[in-house]
Amino acid sequence: MKVEQNWIGSWGWALLVLAVAAPAGGQGDQDDAIRAVRAVLDRQVADWNRGDLDGFLGGYWNSPKVVFQSGGHRIDGWDAMRARYRRRYQAEGRAMGRLAFSALDIEPLGPEAVLARGRWRLTLPDGTRPGGLFTVIFRKLPAGWKIVHDHTSAEEVSP
Amino acid sequence: MKVEQNWIGSWGWALLVLAVAAPAGGQGDQDDAIRAVRAVLDRQVADWNRGDLDGFLGGYWNSPKVVFQSGGHRIDGWDAMRARYRRRYQAEGRAMGRLAFSALDIEPLGPEAVLARGRWRLTLPDGTRPGGLFTVIFRKLPAGWKIVHDHTSAEEVSP
Repeated sequence: MKVEQNWIGSWGWALLVLAVAAPAGGQGDQDDAIRAVRAVLDRQVADWNRGDLDGFLGGYWNSPKVVFQSGGHRIDGWDAMRARYRRRYQAEGRAMGRLAFSALDIEPLGPEAVLARGRWRLTLPDGTRPGGLFTVIFRKLPAGWKIVHDHTSAEEVSP
Repeated sequence: MKVEQNWIGSWGWALLVLAVAAPAGGQGDQDDAIRAVRAVLDRQVADWNRGDLDGFLGGYWNSPKVVFQSGGHRIDGWDAMRARYRRRYQAEGRAMGRLAFSALDIEPLGPEAVLARGRWRLTLPDGTRPGGLFTVIFRKLPAGWKIVHDHTSAEEVSP
């Protein structure tokens, strides 16, 4: 009888722990997710400002399924995204400049997804300062928290 | 002993069901979420094309925390969003025109969040056809699936 109860007890506890842990909506988990996402974004800015485009792109899901939306164009896949960034910022006569994010707002959407939104600003060597807003969706993948979707838009510039 | 085992059995099963159902990542739940989100978007288009702006706005979370990002501007709150739409589409000399979404892509991000992205196109009475891309995040709220975040951008128009 004693043994029987212990056996019951361990099963009961194991299942209870599963039931409670599985939804992973706890405040501690959410804080961890927010911190992890902020670290990825901080690192992206540091990489960009060092001219390390591949480091910057390491914040994105390295997959044909990652999506980047900007200025009416949708780009599918990490390779195509990289080609776009190289064309725009590393081609002859182009510069990466200095990147800054501001008004950052990071919101967990569940145990394995986070929405981050904010404002971006580039300071280019020619003195121009393009900027705008971004929305990025992070997912918790085996490789860590990665951007799986990016929608970046530019301010309307008066002609 | 027999009674004891039955008692164990029902607890075990109840907890197992909790453990399995709680994460709600099942294919059936995901399909339901996709269908529900698609229905909200379809209804938004139908409402817009009937000139029912408040119906269209019913797809959004009616909260000061809903966020709309577009053309460098972030708008916080349903009331401010409504004011923007009224100014742009219902003021003197303005028209709502005909709205269409295309290339719609709906992806669950967890048990209670969905990412939807696609292309929008307006056909206005003056013959212009502005368009671009959108990213919307839906959450499952007590009032149903609602957009909690919208990032809409316009195509770059050559001057």
